[in-house]
Amino acid sequence: MTTHFDINHYRIEQEPYYQAQQNEVALYEAAYAARLPVMLKGPTGCGKSRFVEYMAWKLGKPLITVACNEDMTASDLVGRYLLDSNGTRWLDGPLTLAARHGAICYLDEIVEARQDTTVVIHPLTDHRRCLPLDKKGELIAAHADFQMVISYNPGYQSLMKDLKQSTKQRFIAFDFDYPSQETETAIVARETGLDAERAHLLVRVGHAARNLKGHGLDEGVSTRLLVYAATLMVSGVSADDACQLALIRPITDDAEIRSTLEHAIQAIFG
Amino acid sequence: MTTHFDINHYRIEQEPYYQAQQNEVALYEAAYAARLPVMLKGPTGCGKSRFVEYMAWKLGKPLITVACNEDMTASDLVGRYLLDSNGTRWLDGPLTLAARHGAICYLDEIVEARQDTTVVIHPLTDHRRCLPLDKKGELIAAHADFQMVISYNPGYQSLMKDLKQSTKQRFIAFDFDYPSQETETAIVARETGLDAERAHLLVRVGHAARNLKGHGLDEGVSTRLLVYAATLMVSGVSADDACQLALIRPITDDAEIRSTLEHAIQAIFG
Amino acid sequence: MTTHFDINHYRIEQEPYYQAQQNEVALYEAAYAARLPVMLKGPTGCGKSRFVEYMAWKLGKPLITVACNEDMTASDLVGRYLLDSNGTRWLDGPLTLAARHGAICYLDEIVEARQDTTVVIHPLTDHRRCLPLDKKGELIAAHADFQMVISYNPGYQSLMKDLKQSTKQRFIAFDFDYPSQETETAIVARETGLDAERAHLLVRVGHAARNLKGHGLDEGVSTRLLVYAATLMVSGVSADDACQLALIRPITDDAEIRSTLEHAIQAIFG
Amino acid sequence: MTTHFDINHYRIEQEPYYQAQQNEVALYEAAYAARLPVMLKGPTGCGKSRFVEYMAWKLGKPLITVACNEDMTASDLVGRYLLDSNGTRWLDGPLTLAARHGAICYLDEIVEARQDTTVVIHPLTDHRRCLPLDKKGELIAAHADFQMVISYNPGYQSLMKDLKQSTKQRFIAFDFDYPSQETETAIVARETGLDAERAHLLVRVGHAARNLKGHGLDEGVSTRLLVYAATLMVSGVSADDACQLALIRPITDDAEIRSTLEHAIQAIFG
Amino acid sequence: MTTHFDINHYRIEQEPYYQAQQNEVALYEAAYAARLPVMLKGPTGCGKSRFVEYMAWKLGKPLITVACNEDMTASDLVGRYLLDSNGTRWLDGPLTLAARHGAICYLDEIVEARQDTTVVIHPLTDHRRCLPLDKKGELIAAHADFQMVISYNPGYQSLMKDLKQSTKQRFIAFDFDYPSQETETAIVARETGLDAERAHLLVRVGHAARNLKGHGLDEGVSTRLLVYAATLMVSGVSADDACQLALIRPITDDAEIRSTLEHAIQAIFG
Amino acid sequence: MTTHFDINHYRIEQEPYYQAQQNEVALYEAAYAARLPVMLKGPTGCGKSRFVEYMAWKLGKPLITVACNEDMTASDLVGRYLLDSNGTRWLDGPLTLAARHGAICYLDEIVEARQDTTVVIHPLTDHRRCLPLDKKGELIAAHADFQMVISYNPGYQSLMKDLKQSTKQRFIAFDFDYPSQETETAIVARETGLDAERAHLLVRVGHAARNLKGHGLDEGVSTRLLVYAATLMVSGVSADDACQLALIRPITDDAEIRSTLEHAIQAIFG
Repeated sequence: MTTHFDINHYRIEQEPYYQAQQNEVALYEAAYAARLPVMLKGPTGCGKSRFVEYMAWKLGKPLITVACNEDMTASDLVGRYLLDSNGTRWLDGPLTLAARHGAICYLDEIVEARQDTTVVIHPLTDHRRCLPLDKKGELIAAHADFQMVISYNPGYQSLMKDLKQSTKQRFIAFDFDYPSQETETAIVARETGLDAERAHLLVRVGHAARNLKGHGLDEGVSTRLLVYAATLMVSGVSADDACQLALIRPITDDAEIRSTLEHAIQAIFG
Repeated sequence: MTTHFDINHYRIEQEPYYQAQQNEVALYEAAYAARLPVMLKGPTGCGKSRFVEYMAWKLGKPLITVACNEDMTASDLVGRYLLDSNGTRWLDGPLTLAARHGAICYLDEIVEARQDTTVVIHPLTDHRRCLPLDKKGELIAAHADFQMVISYNPGYQSLMKDLKQSTKQRFIAFDFDYPSQETETAIVARETGLDAERAHLLVRVGHAARNLKGHGLDEGVSTRLLVYAATLMVSGVSADDACQLALIRPITDDAEIRSTLEHAIQAIFG
Repeated sequence: MTTHFDINHYRIEQEPYYQAQQNEVALYEAAYAARLPVMLKGPTGCGKSRFVEYMAWKLGKPLITVACNEDMTASDLVGRYLLDSNGTRWLDGPLTLAARHGAICYLDEIVEARQDTTVVIHPLTDHRRCLPLDKKGELIAAHADFQMVISYNPGYQSLMKDLKQSTKQRFIAFDFDYPSQETETAIVARETGLDAERAHLLVRVGHAARNLKGHGLDEGVSTRLLVYAATLMVSGVSADDACQLALIRPITDDAEIRSTLEHAIQAIFG
Repeated sequence: MTTHFDINHYRIEQEPYYQAQQNEVALYEAAYAARLPVMLKGPTGCGKSRFVEYMAWKLGKPLITVACNEDMTASDLVGRYLLDSNGTRWLDGPLTLAARHGAICYLDEIVEARQDTTVVIHPLTDHRRCLPLDKKGELIAAHADFQMVISYNPGYQSLMKDLKQSTKQRFIAFDFDYPSQETETAIVARETGLDAERAHLLVRVGHAARNLKGHGLDEGVSTRLLVYAATLMVSGVSADDACQLALIRPITDDAEIRSTLEHAIQAIFG
Repeated sequence: MTTHFDINHYRIEQEPYYQAQQNEVALYEAAYAARLPVMLKGPTGCGKSRFVEYMAWKLGKPLITVACNEDMTASDLVGRYLLDSNGTRWLDGPLTLAARHGAICYLDEIVEARQDTTVVIHPLTDHRRCLPLDKKGELIAAHADFQMVISYNPGYQSLMKDLKQSTKQRFIAFDFDYPSQETETAIVARETGLDAERAHLLVRVGHAARNLKGHGLDEGVSTRLLVYAATLMVSGVSADDACQLALIRPITDDAEIRSTLEHAIQAIFG
Repeated sequence: MTTHFDINHYRIEQEPYYQAQQNEVALYEAAYAARLPVMLKGPTGCGKSRFVEYMAWKLGKPLITVACNEDMTASDLVGRYLLDSNGTRWLDGPLTLAARHGAICYLDEIVEARQDTTVVIHPLTDHRRCLPLDKKGELIAAHADFQMVISYNPGYQSLMKDLKQSTKQRFIAFDFDYPSQETETAIVARETGLDAERAHLLVRVGHAARNLKGHGLDEGVSTRLLVYAATLMVSGVSADDACQLALIRPITDDAEIRSTLEHAIQAIFG
């Protein structure tokens, strides 16, 4: 029943494709050099997670990612005792593994988590850089390579779900947005093998959809969905079917919005 | 106490009866070829589950189905430790079994589930295609055959219960609706042995009921209920009794709506 | 500590007294022949449970009854692991016992239960007729004799507590109401030995009370309470005291309604 | 660790002092003879519990009392498995003990309990007279002497906390109220040894307080508090102090109501 | 792992300082002689807990105190099974210890506790004087020396949090308030060694603050805080600083109230 | 599996940098000398935690810090039983460790915790200075060096989340606020090595942001964020980028407030 943990499984072996938008790579390197905790802000699917993966690869550090949710407890992050044939055995949670072995720990959509989950990162994100395992009676000093990264979608911000100021003020923050049309076309073409021309048309559809955000759509179309549409087109699905499947139906059931998007697709793809 | 799991128990051995409505079979094949995550949208009982079973049979892949509900936890999907005579023993949940052994995993009515259940599928539905078992310290790379499918009833959509955008934008979506009268008549006749004429009359009753959706009925009459009515008629129950038992009483207690439906039945069956 | 389960303990050995109101016995036989899931609708104490018992006896099948409530979990129906001296031991819940051994499973007042309890019956109530025991890694194919029956009181229906359409549309439904005066008089006399004349007077009191439903009473007087009153009268209690104890005080504390009922009793018993 | 349960510990050995108010003793005897389930209605401290004790003594049956509360679960009534050195061991709850060994089971203030607690008594309170121990796989047929009794304070009745009709309609009901002045004076004198004259004055104070119910007091003064006051007076405390300690301060903090009560006491005790 | 419980650890060995305000000591002695359950009412920090300690010392009885809170369960009071190397072992809770060994059991701020905690004391506070340990199958007859005492702050009383009448009417009640200036000066001087003059000035500040209760302050300044201020002054802190630290900052953040209090302090200390 | 606890791990070995603002160090020494419980009040990141660390170092006492949160239970503070190969084993929680071994126990943001967590400190913060471990049957007398310290942010104070008066009145309180510009400049320069001139400019930006508190910002910019900005500048990041990353983006997403802050930065850094 012993689990031999190997931090190297969390290393990114192949360079992730990441197209820098400004000087964010250099700024992140400066932040990592001082091990400042980092918050990535921006809408769904604009590349926050990809950026962390790229930086982890570039810095040569392992990356441990946790998708936060409202039912997650502090123990899910820190660890817990398991009952073994020889009594209880402690199992490090992902945050503890990262702190102990020197990984970048990335808490995706932190605002979804309960407060005990967010408070548990406090001692790791100030001058103490430690993690008390109260249930184990152990005080872990973070590995020199450890860094804390969280993501945060301001579009979700509400009175009920927001970070406490005492959490926010522990991070420097990067703003993210969808890539420029040029960059996004390159991404779609590179990831799917679709020709640049049709890739560009898809990106224009994405832009049209993003302009509807706040006018009937909660959120724009992510780069990921553009890649899905391109994937279908490459395997022979018509542009019209591909856009229906990947760009319209997943994001809205509103008949009027759907019609607006269909018109846009016809206008763009002719 | 050992449980020998055999993925082959989840293979569909007999071809399920499925009457294609458009090109959805070909589109699904394209989606499966790229292992794109798929969302099936449509009202209760219009054939979403049957379609997945048919595709699983056609593609020759095992299918693991989970009916979601608001009390389901992430552990119900991913797995948990059980206490055994030799200490604890890990038991894979249905999602883990599907990812590990290469099944299509179908989460029926995903919107009913709690957020921790929906968030747990995120790493399986982007470029990572992995499932971290945090409690076990294991990172499963999904089997090459694994695909994620969810169903979603837009009629249930509400402020309280809706998928997060960051979940929605991980799927391509198929729209489903009740079959055409012709197709549905064929289904009812084939499944019950009822003659085509009376099967058609039942289907007309179903159509009449579906027109009341939004005018006193929350949801139309499903094909399943038409099959129930036909089953009763085949075993000698009168059309009137069969329609009462299978098409009116289960779906409404409103006296006026019941009366409207009874008039429709009399008009149709004469 | 082993529990030797014997399905025969759940057989109804003596014919329950049941007075058919229409052709419901024949219709139920047709439904059972096709193993269609059945929903019994009607007010408290009008004979739904008695009808199921009668049908189980008539069909010669065992009957497993579960009174649903809002604190019941899916595990209460399906089963759970118990810690034994040799580790854990699985204990089938009542639903699993019924599916495995071919009983009629009757979930009384299903609408009281939480959603995870109602969703768990879905795969047993469509063409699959199976019950996945996720926690045990076992997929039970329902015994050929198994049938699912639920009861439902439309009077309790509310926005907060109603069955999901995807549950409703898995059942054919029977409507129940209080028996006719003649039938009810026969029941009261037969069950208690009270003379037919006084039994009839009691039934008239019951009818008077039922007319107050919606005019100050939530629910009418059940046949069971009439039987209680008759029982007391047979053992020498005066009609007045018996009606007070069994027909007035249990159902209301409202002084005005109590007075109305007392007048009715005096008028009827003279 | 074995616990040798002895039902005889629950027998009432000494006749409890009970002063009948009308023919309730005879009516209860008729109800018990038919083993009808009984509901006792009335305000706090008017003698409902004492009546059950008296009847249990008079009938020579053991009495098991459970004070219900909103955190009580069905397992608290029915029983549960305990982990022992030889694995798990089943421990009957008070309801199961009563059903198995033939006691009167008295659930005090049932309306405080959660629904799963109230539903669990259903099969014991209809013609089945059985108790299914689902977790144990055992179906207990109630002992011939078993009877179910519950108490209910109509003053607490509210939309949030009320018995379900399907529970109410399983019981015959007795109404209780505070005893007459004469009876109550006899009770106070007999229980404390206070002279009849001062006992009567205390009872008059109690009556004055009860008239304030609904006019600033939620509930009148119980006989128990009158007994407390008399107890203090017998041990030398002045009437004024005794009434302050036992009749005023426990039931209200409202200055005006307190003043009204003080005036009443001065007027009565002069 | 065995814990040898010794009730003598709960005896008060040194006479607690208690300055009687009226005849409450004699009244309590009368109440204890009859073992009447006692409720102490009054604001925070006015000496309720000290009074119980004094009476326990005076009567030579052990005292077991429990600070109630809204997360406390009945098991926290009554006891629970612990898993030991030889299986489970029962551990008496503080209420059970008190009942078994004859201590005074003091539940501080009972109104904070959940209902199951308050209901559990019912059989100990009426003529039964017993405590059923349902989970253990044991019925404890209270030790002859056992007495139940609870405290209650009427200032906290609200619709959401109040004792049930059926709980209130089991207790006689003592009213408490802050001591007179003279008494309080003596207490402050005696407990800290501060000279009587400055102690008196502090007490006057306390009185000034108590007059603001209901006019911007939820609660007056307790004797404990006066003792804190005196303690600081004895160790050389200025009166101004001591009053700021102990009498102003802990109880309010309202700038206006703080200013009012500062003026009062300057006026009093000159 | 044994954990050898060593209180010395909690000693502060290096003098923390702390710039006294008034006579708070002397006042704290007086409070500690009498072991008075201490409450530190003030906004996020103004130096409360640093002050406690400094005092712990100055007094030569170990410090155990707990970040409170709304999911923390009393057991998280006091301790719990763990299942070991030899049965259960008690594990002291951080509060118990502090009381037993004579540490200063610092509960950060106490108001976030649930009531059972705050009530558990009551017996440690009055004349008793003890901690009853009810689940263990042990009564710990606090070590002579033990002191209780809590922090409290009045800005968070609300009806839903506030300390009970009976908790507040157990502490003396220190007020904290952001340091003066001069002091803060010294801190920023000392902690990061940034030249005093640019450090002063950053501090002026911080002051500008703090003036927006209540006018669009929930909370001002903490000294910590100023240190972050300085850290980035020292490693070559431009003042503009550094202020964006550390002083604007973490604290607000409001476009107007961001613009106001950007103007302030341009005005200050020119």
